[in-house]
Amino acid sequence: MRGVVFEGPHDVRVETVPDAGLLGPEDAVVRVTLAGVCGSDLHIYHHGDGLGIGPGSRVGHEFVGIVEEVGEAVRAVAPGDRVLAPFWFSCGRCPFCREELFTSCLVGGCFGFQNIWTAGGPVEGAQSERVRVPYADGTLERIPEALAAPEHDARVLPLGDVLSTALHALSGARPVPGDVILVQGDGAVGLLACHAATLFGPSAVVLAGHHADRLALGRRLGATHAVDTRDRPDALAPLLADLTDGLGPQVVVCAVASPASMRAAYEAVRPGGRIGWVGMEVFSGPPDIPWDVAFLKNVTLTGGVCPSRRYIHRLWPLLERGVIDPSPVFTHTVGLDDVPAAYAAMAAREPGWVKVAVRP
Amino acid sequence: MRGVVFEGPHDVRVETVPDAGLLGPEDAVVRVTLAGVCGSDLHIYHHGDGLGIGPGSRVGHEFVGIVEEVGEAVRAVAPGDRVLAPFWFSCGRCPFCREELFTSCLVGGCFGFQNIWTAGGPVEGAQSERVRVPYADGTLERIPEALAAPEHDARVLPLGDVLSTALHALSGARPVPGDVILVQGDGAVGLLACHAATLFGPSAVVLAGHHADRLALGRRLGATHAVDTRDRPDALAPLLADLTDGLGPQVVVCAVASPASMRAAYEAVRPGGRIGWVGMEVFSGPPDIPWDVAFLKNVTLTGGVCPSRRYIHRLWPLLERGVIDPSPVFTHTVGLDDVPAAYAAMAAREPGWVKVAVRP
Repeated sequence: MRGVVFEGPHDVRVETVPDAGLLGPEDAVVRVTLAGVCGSDLHIYHHGDGLGIGPGSRVGHEFVGIVEEVGEAVRAVAPGDRVLAPFWFSCGRCPFCREELFTSCLVGGCFGFQNIWTAGGPVEGAQSERVRVPYADGTLERIPEALAAPEHDARVLPLGDVLSTALHALSGARPVPGDVILVQGDGAVGLLACHAATLFGPSAVVLAGHHADRLALGRRLGATHAVDTRDRPDALAPLLADLTDGLGPQVVVCAVASPASMRAAYEAVRPGGRIGWVGMEVFSGPPDIPWDVAFLKNVTLTGGVCPSRRYIHRLWPLLERGVIDPSPVFTHTVGLDDVPAAYAAMAAREPGWVKVAVRP
Repeated sequence: MRGVVFEGPHDVRVETVPDAGLLGPEDAVVRVTLAGVCGSDLHIYHHGDGLGIGPGSRVGHEFVGIVEEVGEAVRAVAPGDRVLAPFWFSCGRCPFCREELFTSCLVGGCFGFQNIWTAGGPVEGAQSERVRVPYADGTLERIPEALAAPEHDARVLPLGDVLSTALHALSGARPVPGDVILVQGDGAVGLLACHAATLFGPSAVVLAGHHADRLALGRRLGATHAVDTRDRPDALAPLLADLTDGLGPQVVVCAVASPASMRAAYEAVRPGGRIGWVGMEVFSGPPDIPWDVAFLKNVTLTGGVCPSRRYIHRLWPLLERGVIDPSPVFTHTVGLDDVPAAYAAMAAREPGWVKVAVRP
């Protein structure tokens, strides 16, 4: 079969790879109907070697598809089922799975990241024709009937990573109705944080980003205000002051977590406020946190890698009812052959390219 | 009147200072019956100039006493009342006071720290005969009848800072019954964190410190286990593993917050766990946080300067019923004249000296 392989910085290729197959009784094999290219794939693309991911690594961790085969112990899904995979596979029964912290599953791991974060044996990347899913019962979510059709794939797929990641940042930061929520970063997670923020009844959702097209998309998805902080670096603070009587937003979603953005989050947040961080820039360098500010303001910092499976089943009804629709983050859909070009366009932040869906 | 004055690093003196008096209609003047010497006083003692606190600054922020005079707008306390002051004075009516985040009061400040943290005009340090209390209604807590006698002062006084600070670290970290709680640091706050931890129904409270006498006191106050991590640096990890099936404590109280202790907290805490930090070592240097660990474990970091007044009124019944008794942290009681020697003994970590009460 064919799949996308990381061969070195700025070099991903579509190659013939071993066919996905059952390796154990708890496995399933899923034929991918739609996969995603994620910001963390770009992180590999830029820094792969630094992350311990070497040439030959299979990439991609977002996918929906149809179950083709299941091992003899699998009970929750069956061949023919349309399923969504969270980006992290998990056994479903260890102490961490029991409390829905699936990303800390004692035997779990991340699709397309297995070189650094798991000891789970060969796991296919999602940007391929088929994927072996370890611990299928503890990992896969069957897509509800109303959404189980190809035309819904682009709405369903973001629940497996970017939408749930956005919701994870928010959930930890516990907004209450009437709060002002600042979202830093206009990538897919930041944009969907604006979308997910609407579920908490905020009085305002302020998106801070660097790209006019993305900021416009953020407004469409739920931001009440959007500021280009590269073009107008001095515009954000007075807007936040105006919206909060000078006290600052109660919640900040840090979808970037660069050194500077984390400092900005601490400086912006209201005393007693909460910062939810899910950005991966910390892997490129530690955040520049003003600790005296953190201490005197009593800021809570929460977040981390998202246990998406905690959120997927809670989101189905909202997706079915049309309360949420994350599909606008996909600006492009390509076949496998065009994935290398899509990585390049996303990495270059080409205007109009936010996130790419892959139809293998 | 007489009071303790910081004159430079390692130099505090008892001097004749201006009499405390009413400056405004919301003020009260309190005659101090018992004051405390706090770890943060030692911070000034060591680093005063670096904190922006210059020679001539009045010090001390923990006190109980008797109201002598009140301004015409004061309603909640009257002359003759025995009162406890939280270490931070607060107006009681601004947006932050309304949500009990008194340390972010828009016009509040810290007794004995006014040079850096408030714009509230001259505020006496607590280590003196009398103290002017700004915003008396929003600051002072009247001591309940059953505790309003000199013999209870040493039980009452820690509620104004060190016990409430310990409780603040814990409250933010939200232990639930059955959790294992690790307390880092065997100063007064760490010892009282062991004491306060017992209120949350933990399965174990592990105290990590450096002083045999303090560790023993920690056991007396509520720790189920105590480890001297200087003498036995390798003993803590296996103990925690044994108590938690290898998963780590759910809650860590970081009462030191030195670079190394904060790293140790992140390394020790269970995935999904919470770190409550109240240590002031961050003012001496940023904590050395392993951000990859923080991200992958989904650690929540909470804490900061304690809004003690949030906790005092909740603790009265527990103190009255004898459920808690923080007075054992006071290893010595001295008069004003002996305060400089007490600072020196505490700063030198002399065996047997944990915390000093001052009877002016």
